[in-house]
Amino acid sequence: MGRIYIEDLDKHIGKEVTIHGWVYNKRSSGKIKFIIVRDGTGLLQCIMVKATLPEEVFETFGKLTQESSLKVTGTVKEEPRAPGGFELEVKDVGIIHIAHDYPITPKEHGVEFLMDRRHLWLRSTRQHAIMRVRHQIIKSIREYFDSNGFVLIDSPILTPNAVEGTTTLFETEYFDLGKAFLTQSGQLYGEAAAMAHGKIYCFGPTFRAEKSKTRRHLTEFWMVEPEVAFNDLNDNMDLAEDFLEYIVSSTLKHKSNELETLERDTTYLEKVKKPLPRITYDEAVGILKDKGIDFEWGGDLGGTDETVISEQFDKPVMVHRYPAQVKAFYMKRDPDNDKLALALDVLAPEGYGEIIGGSQREDDYDTLVERIKEHNLPMEPFEWYLDLRKYGSVPHAGFGLGIERTVSWICGLDHVRETAPFARMIYRNTP
Amino acid sequence: MGRIYIEDLDKHIGKEVTIHGWVYNKRSSGKIKFIIVRDGTGLLQCIMVKATLPEEVFETFGKLTQESSLKVTGTVKEEPRAPGGFELEVKDVGIIHIAHDYPITPKEHGVEFLMDRRHLWLRSTRQHAIMRVRHQIIKSIREYFDSNGFVLIDSPILTPNAVEGTTTLFETEYFDLGKAFLTQSGQLYGEAAAMAHGKIYCFGPTFRAEKSKTRRHLTEFWMVEPEVAFNDLNDNMDLAEDFLEYIVSSTLKHKSNELETLERDTTYLEKVKKPLPRITYDEAVGILKDKGIDFEWGGDLGGTDETVISEQFDKPVMVHRYPAQVKAFYMKRDPDNDKLALALDVLAPEGYGEIIGGSQREDDYDTLVERIKEHNLPMEPFEWYLDLRKYGSVPHAGFGLGIERTVSWICGLDHVRETAPFARMIYRNTP
Repeated sequence: MGRIYIEDLDKHIGKEVTIHGWVYNKRSSGKIKFIIVRDGTGLLQCIMVKATLPEEVFETFGKLTQESSLKVTGTVKEEPRAPGGFELEVKDVGIIHIAHDYPITPKEHGVEFLMDRRHLWLRSTRQHAIMRVRHQIIKSIREYFDSNGFVLIDSPILTPNAVEGTTTLFETEYFDLGKAFLTQSGQLYGEAAAMAHGKIYCFGPTFRAEKSKTRRHLTEFWMVEPEVAFNDLNDNMDLAEDFLEYIVSSTLKHKSNELETLERDTTYLEKVKKPLPRITYDEAVGILKDKGIDFEWGGDLGGTDETVISEQFDKPVMVHRYPAQVKAFYMKRDPDNDKLALALDVLAPEGYGEIIGGSQREDDYDTLVERIKEHNLPMEPFEWYLDLRKYGSVPHAGFGLGIERTVSWICGLDHVRETAPFARMIYRNTP
Repeated sequence: MGRIYIEDLDKHIGKEVTIHGWVYNKRSSGKIKFIIVRDGTGLLQCIMVKATLPEEVFETFGKLTQESSLKVTGTVKEEPRAPGGFELEVKDVGIIHIAHDYPITPKEHGVEFLMDRRHLWLRSTRQHAIMRVRHQIIKSIREYFDSNGFVLIDSPILTPNAVEGTTTLFETEYFDLGKAFLTQSGQLYGEAAAMAHGKIYCFGPTFRAEKSKTRRHLTEFWMVEPEVAFNDLNDNMDLAEDFLEYIVSSTLKHKSNELETLERDTTYLEKVKKPLPRITYDEAVGILKDKGIDFEWGGDLGGTDETVISEQFDKPVMVHRYPAQVKAFYMKRDPDNDKLALALDVLAPEGYGEIIGGSQREDDYDTLVERIKEHNLPMEPFEWYLDLRKYGSVPHAGFGLGIERTVSWICGLDHVRETAPFARMIYRNTP
């Protein structure tokens, strides 16, 4: 396991090392040749000087094509002008495999061409940086919850009931038990677990068979969903802002190189600090009206509405207390106004829209039964969920944060398709 | 967010605190009443002394039933004999919700009864401990890879092809693209990503629509799959043993209380230290023959065979170089014996069977094409996978570790159904 990687070269200055990698690029300047090698952790400029090398080693340069794999041995030198700050004075080159006609060249390619070759496109500097930022975001999320006493609960993917209709659900035959459906949220399961562990989070893939062909929709996406017993809407907002501050600042701290590669202007990201602005839905509607937008109280905020509202703030904005009629049956109503649900959405700045949706949950048995009836939902599949209001019911609240939208926002991307290793959309499930 | 939890009471000795939780148990001894409260982080004995309490507070004791929710305020005292080492001298009790006829009582219940009430069963001490151990195992796995330079790659759940037949696959309609299938492994995608990042791991739910009704099978289970460019079979074994040592020792270190609750004898777990024994399949067959088992060279090891082999060792044993005929098409053959695949299985001690399966992968284009044909598999769905052997192919290897079997082993459980929050089996997909 003693292999040396490019990102660790600062520990090997002046020493002879062997790097295993691929040819990212090469260029020639008379009797000096340059191979830029990538090994997955970084780029390294390797210098071949004709006068210092046996002829057969120097001549391997001519055989190397883009993405050919090789072992290159040489001495590590500090070189501030080189990518990564180091270069290698080559002593030997061992070709492992010569690539022929690598399809992704430095020229511009269309997105569909690249998505068809996603298994190779991942090697490009930009995609490489995005995946590393994605990893950091996920790591920061888990760190946040793990270090704050939350217990991880992996809610099931295969769920037995299409409780809110089947139109946006993927379904599969489940042995002799009829159909099963791919989960859209772990929340209901998370609520059960919060009564066992106090503070929990679910974190896994979720699915929407939505026929939405927008830059913000994937059919398969990861979602993290904390749920906390005894939290009310205010506690939920406190948690959301503390959490967002942590994951954004932690990503800025650890992935500044990658964000630079992505040419991300981090001005707005650096402002993601507590407290975040909190406005009611009523106030949000007021903003829309001030801006001359024809918006009627009672409707849900659309993408454009969200952009207009978020543009009034230089930080993510928390919008709370939505009309109950546009929100889910399980949300608790505002005790001061029964028309409002104790819902919370967080809108990212710079037009990235909703990244968090959550609420305080209805904790009264009879009220929840009433809501299920009002929404014309079947009672039987909710019996276990109602049990949570029968046996030591407590106030509780939680939210969900979509990973791909968050990666898109933090990386400053135009489309979520680049945020997942192999994105799934209505018109794509390959490779 | 200033709520005080039972696990943090050591910071509040002698102070007045309010704990939010549920009645786990209660008992009475004349003018002293005891409520055992659970809050998800621990158990706390709360003492109500008649002489020191207003009558209406003292009388709430009579109303409290198992799993009723409450707030209890009092002074924290050290008490080595109490669960957790502290007790609370009660000053006030606020009832939040009285539970009626909580179905899970201290008496013994049948497993099906409990699985039907999994949303409540999670509150029981034993299930609570298992979920916390599961969380620690997952946390340790991620820590291991994150701190060793691996990049997390979330491979897709919805995959386009049923490349090895549909009999053990869950399938779903995917818009106009025909059928999609729930992944059985992220490995092929992980191989692509390893060529981009050098060292990666996939970690997510995987699915097997197997009609196996055993104590070791779930239809939905989590799997972590590292894949490393330039690793061979020996490197793969080095990685597997280093990884296993880390996750087991880290879980023993951080979850000793939970393992004690589970009455787990940790003698064998404490022995999971490098180096782990490495034996060839041939040697494994030799062990079986020595034990008088009628086993013919060339077959796969069954559950009983695995148990017999693992009983010869007091640590997990790595069995390598299996007959190629019982292993997957993508495994590289042993250059010294073409009948053998460079496969690796790790068998846990104490009869827990296979917890890791992996291999070095075939990295030669022509050979892999040949294997696909030999296995009568269609070529087209593998074109992207073959690309990895066309453009800078390198030796590489990886493995998969099943989370639920690992939890079962580390917790010392009889059946994997208790290792997932809401286990899915052939005859169960509820609640």
